[in-house]
Amino acid sequence: MEKIRRNERMSAMLKLLTDHPNRIYTLSHFCELFGAAKSTMSEDIDLLCGVVKAFGLGQLETVTGASGGVRYRAVVSREQARETIGGLCRELSGKGRVLPGGFLYTSDILADPQLVGRMGEIIATEYFDAEPDFVLTMETKGIPVALTTAHALGVPLVIARHASKVYEGSAVNINYVSGSSGSIQTMSLSRRAVREGQRCLIVDDFLKGGGTAKGMVDLMGEFGVTVLGMAFVMETAAPEKKRVTGQRSLMVMDMLEVDDEQIASVRPAKWLGA
Amino acid sequence: MEKIRRNERMSAMLKLLTDHPNRIYTLSHFCELFGAAKSTMSEDIDLLCGVVKAFGLGQLETVTGASGGVRYRAVVSREQARETIGGLCRELSGKGRVLPGGFLYTSDILADPQLVGRMGEIIATEYFDAEPDFVLTMETKGIPVALTTAHALGVPLVIARHASKVYEGSAVNINYVSGSSGSIQTMSLSRRAVREGQRCLIVDDFLKGGGTAKGMVDLMGEFGVTVLGMAFVMETAAPEKKRVTGQRSLMVMDMLEVDDEQIASVRPAKWLGA
Repeated sequence: MEKIRRNERMSAMLKLLTDHPNRIYTLSHFCELFGAAKSTMSEDIDLLCGVVKAFGLGQLETVTGASGGVRYRAVVSREQARETIGGLCRELSGKGRVLPGGFLYTSDILADPQLVGRMGEIIATEYFDAEPDFVLTMETKGIPVALTTAHALGVPLVIARHASKVYEGSAVNINYVSGSSGSIQTMSLSRRAVREGQRCLIVDDFLKGGGTAKGMVDLMGEFGVTVLGMAFVMETAAPEKKRVTGQRSLMVMDMLEVDDEQIASVRPAKWLGA
Repeated sequence: MEKIRRNERMSAMLKLLTDHPNRIYTLSHFCELFGAAKSTMSEDIDLLCGVVKAFGLGQLETVTGASGGVRYRAVVSREQARETIGGLCRELSGKGRVLPGGFLYTSDILADPQLVGRMGEIIATEYFDAEPDFVLTMETKGIPVALTTAHALGVPLVIARHASKVYEGSAVNINYVSGSSGSIQTMSLSRRAVREGQRCLIVDDFLKGGGTAKGMVDLMGEFGVTVLGMAFVMETAAPEKKRVTGQRSLMVMDMLEVDDEQIASVRPAKWLGA
């Protein structure tokens, strides 16, 4: 290949870094790839740090030390997060999405690749420093946003099931009380899925009473895994007291009754700022 | 902001384009964003096309016509696809992953963000020209790869469920014969999820007899949706005759019995080339 110009190197490097978020690449890796000197690559990276910052594309940072190098993180500012989540709240509020029984239709939003990609980045931003080893979710609706969170954090996703499946091998089953229905349910996870001593972040779509979330915490206890935090796309305003604490939800929902009609009021969570 | 240099513009532009794959951005959009002339932006784009090609990062192309502009597609070459899938086959083959009953453990691979991201790009590469309106999958294990395929195609994901849920509103249910067990199962999809006249691509993790796949085709028939194609992460070599045809699977699995031990033999599908 002919001599690679700075603009070409920089573009390709940013693409490679953003394809593998939260992973440290050594300077030598890029020196070899582009056939460039370390000093040149350092200058490239300095320029890229500036670009990423100027256009609000996340954060590129050099990490010092023995395993040092450069790392891209899809950090979303609070302002950017409020804009995304604010727009989503407007989309979800009103009566157009309220289903019989007072349920809010969110299946389309929870499976929109662009939206769940962004929500995953917003959640990951809060947990980069906690350094989880994996993200845990409970099937089904939370899987897309849990996957994008795991992608942004550069870690695997682990999916708990409602029942143990033959194709998951021996499994640990626990029973938990569903917060909404009060019924006893089963949650199952393959023994091969996680290792004792690991640390996890729980991500799911919806938090009401907190029964399922509590079940996931208990399940991790059975595996000897530490739960570093919990994030949800949406939580209900009522009941105020959940069976878990310390969670970060992106949105808070109230279901209101106005003139015999049910209206959803969805607002960004307080921690996202005014 | 001070004057933006070419290397900065190009890096930022590639990041923005790859964040929204298969979506056409007008030249004017970038002219405004960077405060640059059309001729300058055209040169930038030409250079970027070359970079993306030289480093095997997909395909950047200019689209002419009234709704023209520039578009990024995560096109994976057959050679690149064979490398990824070949590695995966080596990882899956042998006896380490065979579970009691002759099932292959794949849950970790199907929830690895990097791997499913790449598999989604490989599948999308085959269906860019078909221009599906959405990707359909059946819960649970296929959701991650279906999501990344939808992301690469720039379309929404739609998830069929085993039973209709109160929070999905009125739904269409169909019964289908599970290919593997021969039992009658139910598949359900919210009426709000898709519209008549749309065109879909079916993506799922596993194809054995084809009962579930056939069920998805029938379900789409109920909605007046055309099925453009079907892709699976893995299909079994036996039975050779499936209830569906024309599918693209990434891998083909044989479960062999050697000295009373079950050994998985997993190879890349033929269409990926030798």
